[in-house]
Amino acid sequence: MSFTKFSNSQQLIDYISKNSSFFSTDADLVTEEISDGNLNYVYRVKDNQGQSLIVKQTPPYIRVIGEGWPLTQDRLRIEHNSLKLTTERCPEIVPEIYHYDSDSSVILMQDIGDHHNLRELLINRTKLPLLADQLGSFLATMKFYTSGMGIESTDHKALVKNSQNPELCKIHEEVFFWDPFCDHERNDINPLLRETAEKLWADNELKREVAILKRRYMSDTEALLHGDLHTGSVFATSDSCKVIDMEFAFCGPAGFDTGVLLANFLLNYCGQANLPGSEEQRADYQAWLLNTVAALWQSFSQKLSQLMQSHNLDPSLSNASYQQWYLQQLWQDTLGYAGVEMTRRTIGIAHVADLMNIEDPAHRAESEKLSLKIAQMLIVNRREINDSLQLAEQIRAL
Amino acid sequence: MSFTKFSNSQQLIDYISKNSSFFSTDADLVTEEISDGNLNYVYRVKDNQGQSLIVKQTPPYIRVIGEGWPLTQDRLRIEHNSLKLTTERCPEIVPEIYHYDSDSSVILMQDIGDHHNLRELLINRTKLPLLADQLGSFLATMKFYTSGMGIESTDHKALVKNSQNPELCKIHEEVFFWDPFCDHERNDINPLLRETAEKLWADNELKREVAILKRRYMSDTEALLHGDLHTGSVFATSDSCKVIDMEFAFCGPAGFDTGVLLANFLLNYCGQANLPGSEEQRADYQAWLLNTVAALWQSFSQKLSQLMQSHNLDPSLSNASYQQWYLQQLWQDTLGYAGVEMTRRTIGIAHVADLMNIEDPAHRAESEKLSLKIAQMLIVNRREINDSLQLAEQIRAL
Repeated sequence: MSFTKFSNSQQLIDYISKNSSFFSTDADLVTEEISDGNLNYVYRVKDNQGQSLIVKQTPPYIRVIGEGWPLTQDRLRIEHNSLKLTTERCPEIVPEIYHYDSDSSVILMQDIGDHHNLRELLINRTKLPLLADQLGSFLATMKFYTSGMGIESTDHKALVKNSQNPELCKIHEEVFFWDPFCDHERNDINPLLRETAEKLWADNELKREVAILKRRYMSDTEALLHGDLHTGSVFATSDSCKVIDMEFAFCGPAGFDTGVLLANFLLNYCGQANLPGSEEQRADYQAWLLNTVAALWQSFSQKLSQLMQSHNLDPSLSNASYQQWYLQQLWQDTLGYAGVEMTRRTIGIAHVADLMNIEDPAHRAESEKLSLKIAQMLIVNRREINDSLQLAEQIRAL
Repeated sequence: MSFTKFSNSQQLIDYISKNSSFFSTDADLVTEEISDGNLNYVYRVKDNQGQSLIVKQTPPYIRVIGEGWPLTQDRLRIEHNSLKLTTERCPEIVPEIYHYDSDSSVILMQDIGDHHNLRELLINRTKLPLLADQLGSFLATMKFYTSGMGIESTDHKALVKNSQNPELCKIHEEVFFWDPFCDHERNDINPLLRETAEKLWADNELKREVAILKRRYMSDTEALLHGDLHTGSVFATSDSCKVIDMEFAFCGPAGFDTGVLLANFLLNYCGQANLPGSEEQRADYQAWLLNTVAALWQSFSQKLSQLMQSHNLDPSLSNASYQQWYLQQLWQDTLGYAGVEMTRRTIGIAHVADLMNIEDPAHRAESEKLSLKIAQMLIVNRREINDSLQLAEQIRAL
């Protein structure tokens, strides 16, 4: 597979005309590069009638670094595969795909530019009353219908095979589960946090629990995951919600997706303690965040319970007491993976704006310390936190 | 792939001459069919110098049933792949492969006819002092070097993909984890055991635990397993031990192999209570069996610990406290899967000679009831049995 990057607008426009009938043939098209992740080239192409689409192209390397850091282009196949499967079950939660071309490593898809990035919405204290239910329902549906409960076990195994994503999983095995738990050169640590980080690196109980979570991340293939479901991968309006960037998708433990998502709400919670605004505004929004976390889990677990009771293909997994155990296990995994995501977003290589937007390093360190405290509680005490209400209580008490 | 069964000796001999230089060209060869499993055709071919080899051919159906029950021939690729990987790490534990031919679905391999089937050896109360260590060491080595601890995680994922065995796994998902736990038409139950079986089918706690074990069987891919490691798949002499029949191999939870093996020693233990012989002979052999189970676990866990400490490629899985947790988890899985295997061998579709050789149905029922009692204890109480000594104590107390 040889790679040719679109080197000017005309090439992009020619490609679209040749491969899609989205625009009328005489449309006057304008292109703009809007790449904001680290890995890919992303463009918006518009006509003068207000119609637009998105072009995503994956180079055989990491975009922000260049050819010096090669990265499999298979990530676009993975993303396309996951988008397609999600479209079958939850069409409203993903952009529409117009064209996929593995030779040129290009996807043409719906422009969701009317939606806003959820991380920014949270930083700006936007309340979205439908969000928890939209995300909970999406996660439960996809989890169920890509696991051995919702599809035949032979189909599940075919999905596991087709969704293998070893290179991108390997990145996460390192940056989630190793770097932040030792003095790794890739880490990026606020100097005021150094002492706290050093204590963390010496905590063998914490490291054992992270290893337990990592073991499951590496070998459990129960359901197709988004694989990187932070709030930067979610776009929303007051009544709609879209999930993008599925290139880290793979069949893994379901609690990884719910955990990463939950963690990003909690990272915002920690940020809110020191982001600008009155104390009342911040406290009010923190309360909304904890309620949203609880509502998300409620929506997710209720929908999943419903599906397990009504659409389970495997009679031996229909035992009510098993399903109760299963949800409890999933909740504990969720808390554990949330703790790992919070740790890596605080002292690892990839920080989040929810904390980084706090300009004063001392104030930022306060929020960062809160994040590490919550993370540690989630990882080490996850088996003692019974439900989302108790979780909220324990976070408030820190 | 069209299938042509060897329909006479000459075809078999021609095939061997064409594909192997094992025999001298002027050798006078004699063939005999020795198929004794359910699935495949197996032949021994000998010359008049005492040299011999084994021919295994897999038809696209179950041999004992015929074309009416199709079965993937991919099982021979799976077996060959596992034999090859085992040869790399534990050459002494598998027959040597002389030739593999996926088009004709044929393997030519070493004749291990000087070894005896372990199930028969146990029924005849043979003591094999080296056996526990040979099997424990084999299991630990293969488990380690096919998991994300002993090989790179990307290589592990390639192995998972290459070792997928959906059709044969599906058979085990049903006959291990479902049939024996409900009133399934495939079950085969001693009428004197019917009441006991009915109680078992009403035991929701037991069924929950079986579902937990099944969930892991279906989705955990941590290591390459033999997949059907009962004592009929092991052949031994006083100083050597060979493992065959790897067509059920797949990447699954390591405790499944250790559990199935342990179960088959315990099934023999139950059989010994009512097989012919003096009380002293039987008691003496039962004691040897429990010692062997303990020695097998000791050998397995010590070898695995050693490898985890000295050859672990993943520093985040090197934490001593994690490794201790991991072995404990593996022990509990082993007990759980052992309980499932004992149940299915007692009331499911595939019985074992250790129990079936007891001619009197009432005496057989006694041994079968003991088997179900031990099985239930292993499944439900596995988290409370700390080690192999405590296991032996609890079994003796039943």
